[in-house]
Amino acid sequence: MPDVHKYKERFTDFRHRVAYTGRELLERSRKWRSFSTKSPSNCDVVVTFKRGTSESQVDWISNRLQARIPELLFTKTFHSGTQRPALYLTCSFNDLLKGAREVRLRKRLAPEFGGEMQEFCIEDCENFEGFFDHETFFTSSERQAIVRYYLMSLRAMAGDAWDDDIKFSQGQAIMPVLLAAGKIATIFPLHDREALAMLHNSWVRGFTHRQPLDAVAEYFGVKIALYFAWLGHYTTALLIPAIFGLLCWLIVPAGKERALHYPVLAFFTMLWAVFFQEVWKRTNNHYTYHWGTLDKLPSLLEQPRPLFRGVLEPSPITGRLEPFYPRWKRNLIVCFVTFPITLVCLLFVVVVAIAHIKLQEYADLKSSSWRFRGATLVPFLPMILYGVNITVLNAIYHKIAVHLTEMENHRLDESYNNALISKLILFQFINAFYASFYIAFYRMDLALLRHHLVTTLVIRQIAGNLKEVFLPLGQTRIRQVYLSLRADGFPTLKKDDLHTPGTEASDGKSSPNKSTETKITRAEQEEIMPKYDDATNDYLEMFIQFGFVSMFTCVFPICGLLAFLNNILEIRSDAFKLLTNFQRPFSETARGIGVWERAFEIVSYVAIAVNIGLIGVSGSIQALFPGLTTHQYILLLIAVEHILFALRFGLSHIVPPIPFALERSIAILEHKRREALRTLERECRKEARRVSDENDSPDYPSDQTSDIDTP
Amino acid sequence: MPDVHKYKERFTDFRHRVAYTGRELLERSRKWRSFSTKSPSNCDVVVTFKRGTSESQVDWISNRLQARIPELLFTKTFHSGTQRPALYLTCSFNDLLKGAREVRLRKRLAPEFGGEMQEFCIEDCENFEGFFDHETFFTSSERQAIVRYYLMSLRAMAGDAWDDDIKFSQGQAIMPVLLAAGKIATIFPLHDREALAMLHNSWVRGFTHRQPLDAVAEYFGVKIALYFAWLGHYTTALLIPAIFGLLCWLIVPAGKERALHYPVLAFFTMLWAVFFQEVWKRTNNHYTYHWGTLDKLPSLLEQPRPLFRGVLEPSPITGRLEPFYPRWKRNLIVCFVTFPITLVCLLFVVVVAIAHIKLQEYADLKSSSWRFRGATLVPFLPMILYGVNITVLNAIYHKIAVHLTEMENHRLDESYNNALISKLILFQFINAFYASFYIAFYRMDLALLRHHLVTTLVIRQIAGNLKEVFLPLGQTRIRQVYLSLRADGFPTLKKDDLHTPGTEASDGKSSPNKSTETKITRAEQEEIMPKYDDATNDYLEMFIQFGFVSMFTCVFPICGLLAFLNNILEIRSDAFKLLTNFQRPFSETARGIGVWERAFEIVSYVAIAVNIGLIGVSGSIQALFPGLTTHQYILLLIAVEHILFALRFGLSHIVPPIPFALERSIAILEHKRREALRTLERECRKEARRVSDENDSPDYPSDQTSDIDTP
Repeated sequence: MPDVHKYKERFTDFRHRVAYTGRELLERSRKWRSFSTKSPSNCDVVVTFKRGTSESQVDWISNRLQARIPELLFTKTFHSGTQRPALYLTCSFNDLLKGAREVRLRKRLAPEFGGEMQEFCIEDCENFEGFFDHETFFTSSERQAIVRYYLMSLRAMAGDAWDDDIKFSQGQAIMPVLLAAGKIATIFPLHDREALAMLHNSWVRGFTHRQPLDAVAEYFGVKIALYFAWLGHYTTALLIPAIFGLLCWLIVPAGKERALHYPVLAFFTMLWAVFFQEVWKRTNNHYTYHWGTLDKLPSLLEQPRPLFRGVLEPSPITGRLEPFYPRWKRNLIVCFVTFPITLVCLLFVVVVAIAHIKLQEYADLKSSSWRFRGATLVPFLPMILYGVNITVLNAIYHKIAVHLTEMENHRLDESYNNALISKLILFQFINAFYASFYIAFYRMDLALLRHHLVTTLVIRQIAGNLKEVFLPLGQTRIRQVYLSLRADGFPTLKKDDLHTPGTEASDGKSSPNKSTETKITRAEQEEIMPKYDDATNDYLEMFIQFGFVSMFTCVFPICGLLAFLNNILEIRSDAFKLLTNFQRPFSETARGIGVWERAFEIVSYVAIAVNIGLIGVSGSIQALFPGLTTHQYILLLIAVEHILFALRFGLSHIVPPIPFALERSIAILEHKRREALRTLERECRKEARRVSDENDSPDYPSDQTSDIDTP
Repeated sequence: MPDVHKYKERFTDFRHRVAYTGRELLERSRKWRSFSTKSPSNCDVVVTFKRGTSESQVDWISNRLQARIPELLFTKTFHSGTQRPALYLTCSFNDLLKGAREVRLRKRLAPEFGGEMQEFCIEDCENFEGFFDHETFFTSSERQAIVRYYLMSLRAMAGDAWDDDIKFSQGQAIMPVLLAAGKIATIFPLHDREALAMLHNSWVRGFTHRQPLDAVAEYFGVKIALYFAWLGHYTTALLIPAIFGLLCWLIVPAGKERALHYPVLAFFTMLWAVFFQEVWKRTNNHYTYHWGTLDKLPSLLEQPRPLFRGVLEPSPITGRLEPFYPRWKRNLIVCFVTFPITLVCLLFVVVVAIAHIKLQEYADLKSSSWRFRGATLVPFLPMILYGVNITVLNAIYHKIAVHLTEMENHRLDESYNNALISKLILFQFINAFYASFYIAFYRMDLALLRHHLVTTLVIRQIAGNLKEVFLPLGQTRIRQVYLSLRADGFPTLKKDDLHTPGTEASDGKSSPNKSTETKITRAEQEEIMPKYDDATNDYLEMFIQFGFVSMFTCVFPICGLLAFLNNILEIRSDAFKLLTNFQRPFSETARGIGVWERAFEIVSYVAIAVNIGLIGVSGSIQALFPGLTTHQYILLLIAVEHILFALRFGLSHIVPPIPFALERSIAILEHKRREALRTLERECRKEARRVSDENDSPDYPSDQTSDIDTP
């Protein structure tokens, strides 16, 4: 009896707690926007350690930071909610200036000097726009990028070791290794509430407006802004097949197509795909020029990835020690390790897909003859099994791909990402399309294909959007509940040793009277949010969608319309999730959408083959040439396919990727650089010659020395 | 009777003359190398006018030259042999220096300043290697290029007209228009006998040595040197299929191939083609870096073609007036004029080819039933007819292609050439291969194909070499005979008006005592030689050959060997013809082999399709899978073809096109340019700021101003 009471009491307590937490969460999410919008002044970037990391380990890091990267200012603290020690990092303004130069940050010149984007330069910092307001000169994302640069440049010296677990080699970057080993839980920059609120208004709610891409580029960096620019461009482009497809679908009822219906749709889609891609290249250059990232450094001048391994040698360009790794080694690994392993994995997926198809057929066949209860559910079993399989395989393959790409040891983040994404794309492509291909080309059942396409597309898109928005949101909410419960029940360990700067969190206007509340600081609130890796998954979703549109429009004309409707939502839901569900990502620059451009191009070639295949299966051309035998018919289609390949290739050269005005600006800049170097070198040589022999009389008067300074 | 005597006399006279001329020619060709090797001092470039051009017309030009291009020094003269007025052009050393800057000539710095190739610069001319010897500082080809630049920059003013025939519009380039209209017969630079003799020894006779490519680049320019570099690379690469093909041919007798024989050979050839092309890109960059042309100017900075039309506007970069022409106009012309017309022409050729095939079949069929004398010759009639047809069509098509490309109004010589060559390639490709394709894929007779290939290849190659070497040689010899006869018989018109500088010719050591001899000056001797347009025809020959090797090696394995043997000769015969048969071409720079790279790449894709087709025709795979129906067999082959396409595409990314050391040098240069511009701009801004407000105190000490001058 007292036991029952006890349980009852506990249960009531638990119920109350949950109810409280629920109320509190609701309240907090209402309060979200009324929180203090000013970032804490001592924190641009937060580093949190693994649970149970001892104070001495945190000190090990902080001592090294203090000694080797004196530019970083840090505050040691302890997140009582998540039970993790943390470091809050920032920089003084002068060190930000220094860092800005090292990361080759581009800032806008003051209007009186032309107002162009230019690499920041300490020596004439006062000529950059807004320099004299030290608080606002660097945007929050710029500050964070610089602080992160400093943090990542912490390199090991001989004998450095983290607790006997991890031994560092000379010159190895310390933070990425600890992060990869899980010793450091997260490294993330803090959100800027004010900017968030503005983006929320202009971006997520501004359904009818253009996306505020400049603001996005400023807050999230050019790389993410380019994703949204691309998505906007793609969605606009989808209008054309959407309208065209809808008209086709309305005029010609499915199953009653004329002979020319398929070829016309296929050809039209091909043309659309070419021009969508080529015009994007132009748009891309327009944006990147505007954002100052079009002008690409030679890759050897770019910062190597922190995890890039190699023998330390002085850089021939800057003179600083940098790791070097011979290209032939990477090539060997790509040829003899990456390529075969990837191939085996892909073959395995194909085998699993085929096995699934066979199983499905077997289940479909048998279920009708079985007479037990639930026999009608049997056909769904293989589907579920495959779903589980593919999720597991996907996770495993992703691990393998990351591992292989790590092994390839790319020097730049860009090439690392490209190599990784290339591997993922193939896998996802097979997963997404094997069933459609099977139905189209093995079963040759176009009606079934249409049925399959509509379910797949709609399910994929609805599921995708829900997953994207609500999964991380739910994750965050659950973690918040957990955090609240836990902060309530656990003692705050080591609070006496570590300074807890709870002040930032409690300067919110509506600070509640519960004591637990004050301990959940802003950094902790963001710590529990999931990390936004990059736009890879979003691109992947669009990539698959583009595959459906470009490959299957001819049998299922409203593909384009479905995609278009989805994407109108997609833009806003992607924006919403970035603004509310995720930790703020570090700002990254980019010149374009990278490997995706190539991937879309390849798909549009594959689409030609698939379209021709579908025309073949539909037999619509056969109706036009009734005299042909089967193999003549196939040869005819193949010939047409090859001509279309050639045409696709030719068309891709018609749209000049760089607008003329832009080309001119680039040429002018290049001209200035060349002339500047000549001027400088000339002066150098003149000086050298004057010093070495004073009695030499040059044959030619050198009165035109500085004629190019004032063009 | 007296009449007969008269005729007899005349005939004797004529016989004597011919005999004399023959002797004289023999003698002269022996004397060729003993002629004075020093170029006439008043002549770098020769301009000769149309026969019958009046003195006032020549004066019209020379007055304009004098007034508008004061840098050019010219001598008016009259070539009595060819009856053409001529201008001999040269420049003073100082004007050469000025011109060198304007054409952005690259010269080598003196060793104490690093010895790199750099754009020539008047302001510190003394720092370039060998500057103080004014006679030798510029090579003959450099002098000629500069003189030509000046000549071509003669532009019309309002109201300029050549004899009411040709009205010039404001700013139009005069010389190219007159050249195109035939008013000017030729513009050519003089050969340098000494350099020719050296090249003769080291290049044509040095059969076992490497080609003296540096000397070739110096004498003929980088563009021609790159052709020979490419030809050398290709020939070396041919060794592999030559040996492999020979082994196959020796081991497996034709007609007794096993099932895997064709696929193995086809796959091997594909691999070879990829690597040959990718390694070439690397070699190309190696050479062009060495010759100083790798570093490409933005195309807007390059000199427009003299025939480029457009509205004159001040260049935003250099400030000089330059013609502008909007890109969209060119695109419209390409899409709606060039493309349809080219297509029609190609279709016409295809129709002619098919008609020829039908005619041939008809003749073959009938000739056996006909019973008149010469009936056995009937099968050769269609062949001859086709030969005539195709020669005529070729000439017409060439005219059309030139005209269309002129209409497209390309700004740069490079893009003009690329556009023209692209058009020619397609035509030649159809001509060269229609018969092989017909035999392979329509008649499906591989034995006949082999027979056809061996005759075609051998005949093509022998005929090609003979035509290349002996046709221009014969042409020159015939013209020399004609010249001698004519110089003998004709009075030297207008000799009293025009100054004839016969002195250059007669300073040959073996000046004969006949008076006619003295009138045939060196300039006249070279005037009658044919013009070497560029390497297009040589590339075209190799392009067709590469087509044979890459497409037909699998059915005819010794293709590679035949090509290899031919090319060993080809290199030397091409060299020989350049050195002895042609007018010296103007030196031109190039970054690579241009559109040919793309063309070879496309052929290697086409080759995949052709190889798969040949495997299909051979039925060798069918033997491996006897269970397949015809259309399954076709689908299998198509699948393999598509996989090979993808593989070919993937493989082309394996070889990095720029060697690492080179990449580093390029990056260093780029870095220096950027930093130099920043330094200069910084100084400018500092100056501007100092002037505008003196009482502003900068926040940051600017003590690091010149830290990058001494890296």
